Amino acid sequence: MANYLTGFKCLGCGKEYGREYDGYVCGSCLDNLDALYDYGGIGRSFAVKKLKNNKTNSVWRYKALFPFDSLDSVPGLDLSLTPLYKSAFLEETCGIEVYLKDDTRLPSASFKDRASAVVMAVAKEKNIDVVACASTGNAGCSWACMGAACGIKVIIYVPETAPRAKIAQLKVYGADIRIVKGTYDDAYDLCVNDSRENNYFNRCTGYNPYTREGKKSVSYEIWEQLGFRAPGTVLVPVGDGNIISGVWKGFRDLKQLGLIEKLPMLIAVQSDKSDAVIRTFEKIRNRENTWQEISVEQVRATTRADSISVDRPRDGTAAVRALLDTRGCGVRVSDDRIIAVISYLAARSGIFVEPAGATSVAGLIKLAEEKSVKIPEPAVCLLTGNGLKDVDAVLGGK
Amino acid sequence: MANYLTGFKCLGCGKEYGREYDGYVCGSCLDNLDALYDYGGIGRSFAVKKLKNNKTNSVWRYKALFPFDSLDSVPGLDLSLTPLYKSAFLEETCGIEVYLKDDTRLPSASFKDRASAVVMAVAKEKNIDVVACASTGNAGCSWACMGAACGIKVIIYVPETAPRAKIAQLKVYGADIRIVKGTYDDAYDLCVNDSRENNYFNRCTGYNPYTREGKKSVSYEIWEQLGFRAPGTVLVPVGDGNIISGVWKGFRDLKQLGLIEKLPMLIAVQSDKSDAVIRTFEKIRNRENTWQEISVEQVRATTRADSISVDRPRDGTAAVRALLDTRGCGVRVSDDRIIAVISYLAARSGIFVEPAGATSVAGLIKLAEEKSVKIPEPAVCLLTGNGLKDVDAVLGGK
Repeated sequence: MANYLTGFKCLGCGKEYGREYDGYVCGSCLDNLDALYDYGGIGRSFAVKKLKNNKTNSVWRYKALFPFDSLDSVPGLDLSLTPLYKSAFLEETCGIEVYLKDDTRLPSASFKDRASAVVMAVAKEKNIDVVACASTGNAGCSWACMGAACGIKVIIYVPETAPRAKIAQLKVYGADIRIVKGTYDDAYDLCVNDSRENNYFNRCTGYNPYTREGKKSVSYEIWEQLGFRAPGTVLVPVGDGNIISGVWKGFRDLKQLGLIEKLPMLIAVQSDKSDAVIRTFEKIRNRENTWQEISVEQVRATTRADSISVDRPRDGTAAVRALLDTRGCGVRVSDDRIIAVISYLAARSGIFVEPAGATSVAGLIKLAEEKSVKIPEPAVCLLTGNGLKDVDAVLGGK
Repeated sequence: MANYLTGFKCLGCGKEYGREYDGYVCGSCLDNLDALYDYGGIGRSFAVKKLKNNKTNSVWRYKALFPFDSLDSVPGLDLSLTPLYKSAFLEETCGIEVYLKDDTRLPSASFKDRASAVVMAVAKEKNIDVVACASTGNAGCSWACMGAACGIKVIIYVPETAPRAKIAQLKVYGADIRIVKGTYDDAYDLCVNDSRENNYFNRCTGYNPYTREGKKSVSYEIWEQLGFRAPGTVLVPVGDGNIISGVWKGFRDLKQLGLIEKLPMLIAVQSDKSDAVIRTFEKIRNRENTWQEISVEQVRATTRADSISVDRPRDGTAAVRALLDTRGCGVRVSDDRIIAVISYLAARSGIFVEPAGATSVAGLIKLAEEKSVKIPEPAVCLLTGNGLKDVDAVLGGK
């Protein structure tokens, strides 16, 4: 066996599937699947001592934990570990030790490249010719970028409201762009239907169980960059819920392998104009049986932070389970605060993020001000997208 | 001595200055200065074997070759080696082995960070409080980014025609922005005058001899990434001439240290609407005495590639000397071709560059089509700025 994937388990109802299952979501309850691994097998080739001697300075140093066979399948773009900066000014502002995980430096300038690179490798090993994705912008740009690097035809469904820079990326990467007159949620439904009808390989976030398997690499990097230890807290910008579920998965993997003792507390940060995951969490957080079925709330999202503007979170069950499982919580921030934090962060660190990317820092500052939640140290804020993707957010205009 | 700088030599008239000289340019002929080093001293601590065991994965692994004392002085942003990709599609198009040096991934998304990081370290060691820079956009963004990371006040003079994304970067990094109603050349003159009057530390490209000392690091990286050998050719987008003079300096350093035998051929690629360096080179290329004084031509630049739109190249003498010294040449490309190459490159590689960044590839393709110049292999094209900095170039609009 060239990889350690053993099957899938539904995050809604718990039903299990074999490793060859290609129905994407659970055939029974339609919720998303979680990939299962042979951790005993992984543990034989994956250890701290081996990592220390591993000269691969990219995310592929964690190959044993990914669900594809060969590094020959991965896109040829550089996926070096992204910077993890200790932030003196946030420590001063918030009174705790804070790190910034800067994913603005990835090839298409967003966190989504973690997912796209792994899913593209899976697609290549399945000999796929045409791949599709719905996107608020970043996932599509990332998918188109990796498709260009691999010579695979990419179809992207994107709402017409996406920022111009993201449309520009899709265009230059040569994607077949389907502009959808509607929301991200409309684009998503259209992509799922078209992909079913035309037999496209569908990268839609959460729906495709491999996106989480790509996104989880951020947790391995944080763990290694902190000197092979888990942080106390990770603050994550949340829209669809797939990034936070990826962070959760990465730390679960490390715990399964005995490499950390305890999962970090995960904090979902959402715009107060797109807070479906937090609403769901708040409804059920006091349940005794945390693994019973979850009915994910829907909202009418209107946030300026386009990347996390989501009516119906497509990985919502997983996101809520991540909060329950890590004794985490949610925090809502206003769009005004998100926009203000972009400049606040850039002027003090030299890191320019798009609105969604500023959300984690905005959430941390709010929690520190309120003193309502004890935040275990060190806290890590994920910076998920480059500010150059949406300059109108700071200049005014569309 | 904590660094190996020994002094400066004027690239125009050859006059020498001591290491403490702070007049920026030559007091006699006003041309730019070239930093001089004690290569014997450097050689005692800088060798291939030591580099192989050096665990610093950033440009600071070449510390011995920079003109500042301590790594404590460098900005805290990640300056990992940028990717060097072997390009199969360009090899097919051009019939020779080609690499792409992807500097779009640097902190402020352009090559200029190489200069800004080193010059900022020099400024910090001189206990400077206020620093200034004139810029077509990228140098200013980079300078503001590094200033933010170091907590140093930055003043930027930028022409009103700079792309919106670059203005957004300047704004969020907290720079004091002086919009100049005029060209880059007007902004440059204003910055030099204001800096003299107010005693600002001036980072203006070329005028400040340390910018070249930062930019030269790209050559060390290429050399190391090719397995400690020089490429046959490097194609460089040229505006002011300071990048190509930095590339030249990097390889000269390696030759002085006995680490390469021969300098690569340097090719200056310019827009045919901003070709002052090539015009100068063509006038004097057949001179017998290549080190006599050079009178740099001026043009009325109108290219869409804003980063290389320059009337009067501020490091023109050095750029022309780089071509003469490496038996190089110039190639002009049209703006239409530059814009077309942005999408051509992105769709085949997943790398999105701004117009200036596409210029090197456009030049290589043109030379390969014309078969007029024998291009020693491998050829390396510098990709100098991220496409997200100027999306209107591919979407239309301003």
